[in-house]
This record gives sequence, C-alpha cells and structure tokens, in this order.
Amino acid sequence: MSYEQITWETADGIATITLNRPDALNAFTHVMRDELIAAFDAADADDEVRAVIVTGAGRGFCAGADLSAGADTFNAGAGGERAKARWAAGEIDGVPRDGGGTVALRIAESRKPVIAAFNGPAVGVGVTMMLPADIRLAAESARFGLVFARRGIVPEAASTWFLPRVVGISQAMEWVATGRIFDAREALSGRLVSHVVPDDDLLPAARGIAREIADNTSGISVAVSRQLLWGMLSADSPWEAHRLDSKAINGLGASPDAAEGVEAFLAKRQAKFPMRVSTDYPDYIPPWPPRPTA
Amino acid sequence: MSYEQITWETADGIATITLNRPDALNAFTHVMRDELIAAFDAADADDEVRAVIVTGAGRGFCAGADLSAGADTFNAGAGGERAKARWAAGEIDGVPRDGGGTVALRIAESRKPVIAAFNGPAVGVGVTMMLPADIRLAAESARFGLVFARRGIVPEAASTWFLPRVVGISQAMEWVATGRIFDAREALSGRLVSHVVPDDDLLPAARGIAREIADNTSGISVAVSRQLLWGMLSADSPWEAHRLDSKAINGLGASPDAAEGVEAFLAKRQAKFPMRVSTDYPDYIPPWPPRPTA
Amino acid sequence: MSYEQITWETADGIATITLNRPDALNAFTHVMRDELIAAFDAADADDEVRAVIVTGAGRGFCAGADLSAGADTFNAGAGGERAKARWAAGEIDGVPRDGGGTVALRIAESRKPVIAAFNGPAVGVGVTMMLPADIRLAAESARFGLVFARRGIVPEAASTWFLPRVVGISQAMEWVATGRIFDAREALSGRLVSHVVPDDDLLPAARGIAREIADNTSGISVAVSRQLLWGMLSADSPWEAHRLDSKAINGLGASPDAAEGVEAFLAKRQAKFPMRVSTDYPDYIPPWPPRPTA
Repeated sequence: MSYEQITWETADGIATITLNRPDALNAFTHVMRDELIAAFDAADADDEVRAVIVTGAGRGFCAGADLSAGADTFNAGAGGERAKARWAAGEIDGVPRDGGGTVALRIAESRKPVIAAFNGPAVGVGVTMMLPADIRLAAESARFGLVFARRGIVPEAASTWFLPRVVGISQAMEWVATGRIFDAREALSGRLVSHVVPDDDLLPAARGIAREIADNTSGISVAVSRQLLWGMLSADSPWEAHRLDSKAINGLGASPDAAEGVEAFLAKRQAKFPMRVSTDYPDYIPPWPPRPTA
Repeated sequence: MSYEQITWETADGIATITLNRPDALNAFTHVMRDELIAAFDAADADDEVRAVIVTGAGRGFCAGADLSAGADTFNAGAGGERAKARWAAGEIDGVPRDGGGTVALRIAESRKPVIAAFNGPAVGVGVTMMLPADIRLAAESARFGLVFARRGIVPEAASTWFLPRVVGISQAMEWVATGRIFDAREALSGRLVSHVVPDDDLLPAARGIAREIADNTSGISVAVSRQLLWGMLSADSPWEAHRLDSKAINGLGASPDAAEGVEAFLAKRQAKFPMRVSTDYPDYIPPWPPRPTA
Repeated sequence: MSYEQITWETADGIATITLNRPDALNAFTHVMRDELIAAFDAADADDEVRAVIVTGAGRGFCAGADLSAGADTFNAGAGGERAKARWAAGEIDGVPRDGGGTVALRIAESRKPVIAAFNGPAVGVGVTMMLPADIRLAAESARFGLVFARRGIVPEAASTWFLPRVVGISQAMEWVATGRIFDAREALSGRLVSHVVPDDDLLPAARGIAREIADNTSGISVAVSRQLLWGMLSADSPWEAHRLDSKAINGLGASPDAAEGVEAFLAKRQAKFPMRVSTDYPDYIPPWPPRPTA
C-alpha cells in the first residue's frame, strides 16, 4: 500500500509510522485518519511486526486538526466535500463518527504494542489519538496542548475515557479546563509521557524499547497481555481477570511458546518463540474494547 | 443570599467560597453543609462565574467535623436538634445522608471547574469533600489527615469512590489505614494536590489557574468537558466516549463558540465566546454522577 | 498450624509471613500457595492481628514460579502429581484455577491491612500476588520483573485487573510488554512501591507503618475502610459510595469505637477501641471482590 500523508517502514521487527505533512506540522486530516487505520491493519496482519512506533516528520508531531476550513472546521453540515469525507468514517447514533476517535479505537484494538514518540508540538487530536498507545516518549522540545476548550469544542478521540485513566482525573481536568500549552517536563510529571529524552535521542529511545520487546518476548504473550490489561479496565471484579488468566495460563502454558520461554530461560539463551499472532491468537480472549450496548 | 459560616465573593469571573468559622478552624457543621450547597447552586446559576475557588478563613482550611457533641458527634440517634439537622439533608436507604457526601456530590455535579486552595490544616471531611474538585493546591504550611480510623468511623463524603481515583488505591489505603497527619510535600508526591506554593502565593496561584480558564476558554466547553471526563470514569468502554464525543463535536462544532474559537485562534486574538452555560448547555450530555439503581 | 514453606509470627499486633524457601529464592509452589491462604485465614481469625507483613527469607522475596518442571512448568495436562496439585485449588470455567490468583484473591478479601516488604528479587508471581496488598515497600537492592511475555505466558494472579489500577495502564503495559527487570528506584517512580529504604531498614520501616495502624486506629474502621476503598473501584457512581458510607457513618457513628475515638482525641490520649473484627464487623458492607456473574 502506498500512503500520501503518512509513511510506513518496517525493519527488524519494528514498524514506524510517520505523520507526513511537515509543512502543516502534520495537521490531522480525513486522509491521514484513513491511512493511520490502514497502517495499523497492516501492522496487525504482519507477523514480522512486533512493535509499532508513531512519530512525526519535520519539526513537530501533529498540530491538531487541520483548520484550513476556518470557522467551519468542526461544522459537518457546512463542509461540502469535507463533510462527505467525515461521513466516510460512518456514523454513530446518527451523527458522523469523530475522526480522531476512529483512529484511537483502532489503536486500542491493536495486537501489537504501540509506542508514541513526540518529536515536537502535539496539540489536540495530536495528543488524544495517541492516548491508547501503550508507551509515550517525548523529546525535550515537545509541547502539548489539550486546547479544545479554547476552540469552543470538547476533547475527542474517546479521550474523555482514555485521558483520566492515563494521567488521573485531576491532571486531566487541569489540562482540559485551562487548555494551556505545556512542556515535556510537565508532561512527564503529569504522566502523559513516561520518558523525556534529548531531541536526537528520541527515535533511538523509542527503538530501544521496541527492541526490548521484539528481541525478548513472545508476540502471542504481548498481544494477549495487551488485550487483558486494557480489557480489565472495563471489569468490575478481579475475579473476571482470574477467570481469563486461568484460561490463558492453562492454554498458553501448554503451548510451544511457553515451553520455549522456560527452556531458553533455564539454558540462559535467547528464546525463539515459534507461535504467530496471525494464526495462533487464542479464541477465548474476548475482544476489547467492548462496544456500547445501548 | 447571605451566609453565616461561609463567605461568597465574585470578581472578574471567579467565585471564591471561604469557609468561615476561623475560631473553630472552620470545622464542618450542618449549616456549613447547606451553605456550601447553596453556594455551588449560585455558581452554576451565574453565567459570569467561570471558576470556583474554595479556601478557608484564618490559619486553616477545615479541621473536619465539628466535635462539640463529643462522643455523640457521629451518633444521629442521640443528637436531639443536631440529629434533626442531619436529617434535613434527607435520607438514603433509610438512614440520614452523610453530610459531607451531600456536599461532595453537589461539587461533583458542578458545571463550573472547582479549585481547592488548602491554606492550612485540612482534616477528615475537610479533605474528603474537596476530592470532587478538579484542581487542588496546597500552601507549604498545609497539613492533611484522613483520620477516620483514629475516630472509630470510616472515610465519608463518597471518598471511598473519589480517593482511589484521585490518588490511586495504594496511596489511599496507606493514608486511610494509618490515619496519619501528613504535610504538603507528601500530599504532592501522593498526588492529592498538584501544586505546593509558599503560603502567601496560595490564593494568587489559585486565581492564576482560574484566570487561565476564564480568560481563554468557552464556558460551555469546560462544562461539557467536566461532565464527560468525570462521567467516563463510570463507562466500561471507550466506545461510550466515542458515542458522546461524536455528538459533542458535531453539536458544538456547528456552534457559535466553535466558530469564534477557531477564528480567534487563526487571527491570533483572544476569543470572546458568545454561548452561556445557563441556556446553551447541550441536552445530549447525560448528567453525572449517575444515581445507583438498586 | 505448622507451615513448611512459609513462617508465621505474631508480635504486638503485627503478623509477619515470611516466604521460606531461601535456597530457591522462595520460588512459588502449590504448597506455598496453600500455606499463604491458610496464613491469611489465620490473620483474619485473630483479633490481636492488626496488620500483616509479607516478606522473604534470605536474599530475595520470591523468584516467581518454581521452574523445576522445565518446559512443562505451566502445562497442567502434562504434570502428573504436579497437575493434580494445581487442581487442588479447584477450577473456574472448566480449567484449573491459576495458583497465584487464589492467593491474590485471598489477600484482596483480607480484613487486615497488608504490607509487602520486598527484600530482594521479586519476579513474576512474586510481584503479582502482592498487588492486592495495601502498601508495598522495597529495599534498595530489590529487583522486579513482570517477565511473563519472556516465558511465553501472560500476567496472572488477577494482575491484569490489579496492575493497571495500582501503577496506571501505561506503566503496566511498559513493564509487561518488555518483560524487563527493573530496580527499586524505577518501582518507586512507577508507583509499584511507595517507599524505598536501605536494606537494613526494610523490616523496621514495614513494622513502623504497621505500628502506626495498630497503635492508633480501630480495627473495625480499618477493615471496613479496606472493603469500601477497594470495593468502590468496582462502582460506577460515587452515589454508591454515598449510600454505603451513610450507612457506615450512621452505624459506626453510634458504636463504642466512635465514642472512644472522639473522646480520646478530645482528651489527647491514645484511644483503646473496644470492638472486635471477628464479632462486630457490620453486616451491611457487601463483600469484595464481587464474583463474576456470567
């Protein structure tokens, strides 16, 4: 597949998705939306891909929604072709689905771990669509803003669900109510990112974490763990986890990956896990996130 | 409205509620309870109010429940007039509603963002009723205590729900199980407050955050964001957020506030948002918190 | 009761459980599983016990699952006697219950606060079974690893539920997806533990916190608080907390412990609470954790 507003590369088990409208600080469009979703589909379909890094081309990560429609930017009814493009993502409850949300929910469903590498300004949807990533790193020059209230709208991309779970409700409310721009250090202390590194070290750091995953772990284990950890945020009781992890320990415990994992550890050698996410993913793990019923 | 145990001031879009029984370290009474609820009603009814600050008069924030009834302090059946006053807040499941909880749930429902400014000791209900605030700041001299287990009772004001969500379950359990008094630095590292400032800077710092909100954001955006962020803590799935934020982006995206927000941003001028919370709050946002069904 | 793979001591209101297979770095077995459960039963049955400390004998806390069965370690169907021993914990949904989960859920149900003191390596189930503890401390030499994906399995002991609630979903995913070993400082910054102390100070620090609890608080208050704080993680609405804490404030507020707690505080003397967890625990507090219904 060829892309217009992102690039996609794979090397040594790591896929790198780069938002690629550098002249517009990689502002988010409906084309970028569709390409991001396609790229995550590609990552899930390729057993060679063990981790996905998302970063931005040029001097920023993503400036947020493309505002070239001016006052009509968020007005689906007024947009002509643009409104039609929004409808292309389908509707929910009779309104066009929010574009950032279609990306965020796709990332949520990913069977590969996702690492966001914020290389400069990340504003609005540039932040919110990355909240379902598993790990977020920032370059020292990164800047963030949940600026929705300054534009007369509200946080989107399902971030009203993700943000309080990632950074806590108080930090979420402070950033959302003020809409202020904040730097990488504040992002770190507020737990939006887990690492801040010098600008030149950002991609090496992201790749270093991806390597830890690709070199040492079972893809099946990581895929199932991802579903279970995120999924149990939706479970009332740890008994639900016990029910599922008993199945997983019994099921995977008798699998070739578990045999290899223990044998390699005891032999002090690197494991070579034989199972494949595309074919060996267990059917007893319920899909996450659950769709609303009402 | 005139108040007896609190004061209420508004200036430049900021309401300040001051607990005002300084000779008793602002100990909480049923009168203070009713006045706090009335004050939050007033804040919501006044479109000029864009943020609410709560602080204490004199050398403390709130010493907790007024203990002047001694051993009968928490004994509704023994209290005569005092017990009647407790019943004035109504009952739930056949018992008088906990007074701190009536305040906490009223703050939870607020359409204006709430900033707690802890200017000295904050103990028991003095802490717990402020957990539904959005932002909490402490003066360096502030001291905190979740002392319930030292008094033979349990955390109230719905804090068994709020506290683990604000500070995490482990920090919550350590403070509650020991009942110990802790200082502002421990409150900061434990994420009970997000800022600690010199005593003289406390109200300026609280007002600074309130100003960021009042000067730069849409009141409708902040009110809806507040409902959604807190409300999605109660949602099992990010799809629920996607459903609601798609409605909100479509609804508010076509509103005068969104047009003004984007135009002002593109023109690099301060926005003047025309919509009003009292009349323009969208009807598709479900009220939070939901009442229990059983 | 006499134990084979743990030790149990009580002194001055504090029970200390020590994992005791020091030659195997206290690796977890089905015998240890059953003894841990019995020890928590004993702690709950003894009104003299006000807090429980769990630590390890020798130079580590717990190396994780005993891997002496090699490639068949997690293969219930291949284990002969070992598989039978796993079945001894019963089954859930037609598979043997995960052994770590039986311990974790027993700790979750504890009526006494639980303090984990990590005195050295804590890996796999050595970490996960301790997530339902209330307070976790680490010696400076402690090392941690959620190594499941490196062994071809997934996190167990109901940790897919507990871990994101204790450390946040992003930190949880980073540790689980990489499976890496990390030190006490990273455990502290990632909020897996709340205190790191020099090795020789570990047990004194754990006992210091236990003493704060035992010397100053009502056992009934702590037991009910523990149920409510953990239990409200499973509640959609703070109204559920209001309903329960109104009952508890009214019920315990008229109890001898509340009278003593307030009188002692006003008299500036240490309280001597008369109530007993074994006989006076209120029947209106629902048991936690709830079992799954489907």
